[in-house]
Amino acid sequence: MLKTRLFTPGPTPVPEETLLELAKPVTYHRTAEQKQILGEVIADLKYVFQTANDVIVLTSSGTGGMEAAVSNVLSPGKKAILLTAGRWGERWRGIMKGFGIEVVNVEVAYGKAIPPAMLEEALANNPDTVAVFATLSETSTGVGHDVEAFGKIVAKTSALLVVDGISGLGAMECRTDDWKIDICVSGSQKALMLPPGLAYVSVSAKAWQVIEANTAAKNFYFDLKRYRAKLPENDTPFTPANTLIRAQRVSLKRIRAEGIENLWARHARMGAAARAAIAALGLTNFAERPNNAMTVITVPASIDGNELLKNLEKKYGYKLANGQDSMKGKIWRLSHMGYCDMFDVIGALSALELALLDAGYKFQPGAGVAAAQRVLTGRG
Amino acid sequence: MLKTRLFTPGPTPVPEETLLELAKPVTYHRTAEQKQILGEVIADLKYVFQTANDVIVLTSSGTGGMEAAVSNVLSPGKKAILLTAGRWGERWRGIMKGFGIEVVNVEVAYGKAIPPAMLEEALANNPDTVAVFATLSETSTGVGHDVEAFGKIVAKTSALLVVDGISGLGAMECRTDDWKIDICVSGSQKALMLPPGLAYVSVSAKAWQVIEANTAAKNFYFDLKRYRAKLPENDTPFTPANTLIRAQRVSLKRIRAEGIENLWARHARMGAAARAAIAALGLTNFAERPNNAMTVITVPASIDGNELLKNLEKKYGYKLANGQDSMKGKIWRLSHMGYCDMFDVIGALSALELALLDAGYKFQPGAGVAAAQRVLTGRG
Repeated sequence: MLKTRLFTPGPTPVPEETLLELAKPVTYHRTAEQKQILGEVIADLKYVFQTANDVIVLTSSGTGGMEAAVSNVLSPGKKAILLTAGRWGERWRGIMKGFGIEVVNVEVAYGKAIPPAMLEEALANNPDTVAVFATLSETSTGVGHDVEAFGKIVAKTSALLVVDGISGLGAMECRTDDWKIDICVSGSQKALMLPPGLAYVSVSAKAWQVIEANTAAKNFYFDLKRYRAKLPENDTPFTPANTLIRAQRVSLKRIRAEGIENLWARHARMGAAARAAIAALGLTNFAERPNNAMTVITVPASIDGNELLKNLEKKYGYKLANGQDSMKGKIWRLSHMGYCDMFDVIGALSALELALLDAGYKFQPGAGVAAAQRVLTGRG
Repeated sequence: MLKTRLFTPGPTPVPEETLLELAKPVTYHRTAEQKQILGEVIADLKYVFQTANDVIVLTSSGTGGMEAAVSNVLSPGKKAILLTAGRWGERWRGIMKGFGIEVVNVEVAYGKAIPPAMLEEALANNPDTVAVFATLSETSTGVGHDVEAFGKIVAKTSALLVVDGISGLGAMECRTDDWKIDICVSGSQKALMLPPGLAYVSVSAKAWQVIEANTAAKNFYFDLKRYRAKLPENDTPFTPANTLIRAQRVSLKRIRAEGIENLWARHARMGAAARAAIAALGLTNFAERPNNAMTVITVPASIDGNELLKNLEKKYGYKLANGQDSMKGKIWRLSHMGYCDMFDVIGALSALELALLDAGYKFQPGAGVAAAQRVLTGRG
């Protein structure tokens, strides 16, 4: 027997009680009970986002939430600054291209973090910028960007700060209001411990003003004003994936019980432990400024990165993620977000050690696990 | 003890084995197994659609599928003919308004069906029409439109026929290819026996030509070309609601086992039985040309329509749907689609009789159930 274990940066494992909620009979979506559930989910999402802003629940993947931000705030010909250092920054660019937006690219290499000074300069050179688009956790590289610093810079201008927090929210500190994030987008299938299918979008008063003034917007399903109109009654304009919403309530209660700061601290511990293990194995972390949602490892020159991942899955049951597109075979992405505890991380590191041994990589067996243990028990 | 029974025209009851599939552990969405599943789902959807055209799977509500049709085929300033006789025809109009489309309205009253001759005239008067938008089953009124006749008319022109088959597909005859439907949109939560969260869109070769030529389209998440590019590998461009897709496979296997013509015949029998019962109770069907997904009953003048529905739910456990917006309190909508058999219908009709008795309505108790029994057993 070999169990299958999921360590991809979304979808992530879902708690058993949440899965069982999904197996309950389907109910109608326009009932007092359903409205009560959506109301609770939105209140708990506000807690996770650390915001008093409106939070909108969309039935879509995270990209749909990102499109909602773009299509509501901007219209063809308007200007946006894009901070990008990976595939998910490029996702913002793809969406903006689809909507005819003029994009000012502020770009650094994969694995690097955007220096806030570059944003400051871009904003000074482009005073007609309507919004700045950033990424909290760049899932393609493992970098966590300094959104707090971005927020301080953007807040001094009339521009909005729009953040893709899809894989970051809940896995690393993110204080939507304190950090002046006008629109923060997240998804259900990362640290929020649900299967894919729901996206969440917080919208500040400053952002609503821009949205209301944007009369040339081209949208309908992602028209955030339609969702806002239904918020007072805890309802949605279109049939939502209501069984997913019901199940999200279950996972959010778990987050409430743990407490958001404890949640961040748990992810920080798991991230630090994985990074310590990687270093102890003589491997290098790919991300310059690592987020705590995942650990991204540079594949050593002596190893076939694709083959090792296949072996890890087939022989040991551990499913990690490969690099995407140009990064394929060059990095391994080990997620430790959501429904993941210290022994899950220890197990994954142990499997990684065994796969490295199989690949003929030289290191002291057990050194990675030992380093992780020290960090996880506070003796690191 | 009183069981809760769902008879709303979406969401509808989901088979137990499909619900249990949703409770299984979450898996990664970019695996050979997941691609195999999506491939099977698409093949089975083609069977349900009765099409050899591409079928695209979207993570969204049905409205998202409708938006995909509008935003891919049309762009601001282009012209469309809208056949509308209810709230879901108006949904097409709302989406087209959101995308700046010029709409030619061909409209008849709620409860009526669009005469095909009206479409013929509108097309003659508007030779620059890019597409005609229609509704297979108008869920707000219970009408089934004559899409087969529309198809014969539209096929003679360069225009596309785009059909909202969300609540109709699987519940009433719909032959996408034989009827020349260029784009047919459906949803998971109606006759396809899944919770809400997925939309399906079939696209003909004629439609792909129009989409490719439509370079002014404004979209990204619903850009159908992005989905088509992933079809050869049975993949999706964005993280799909992959546990819903896995569960859809289970419900589709049930449909395959029953056979599409048997499925249509079962719905036709249930529809005929419910209509016979309504007539035997001295009530009238609201829909001029009823579809078989639901039976829509005109509330008699002597009865408070809202109160009866509340009583039906509270005292007997049966959840039917009220009329929407202007129709609230004026009609009752009894769905019999998807995971619904003859005794489910008999039970609902029995509960309706009891609620009518409670409301002081005069009729021969048991007459409705008896009429339905005669039809369901072929003695009607």
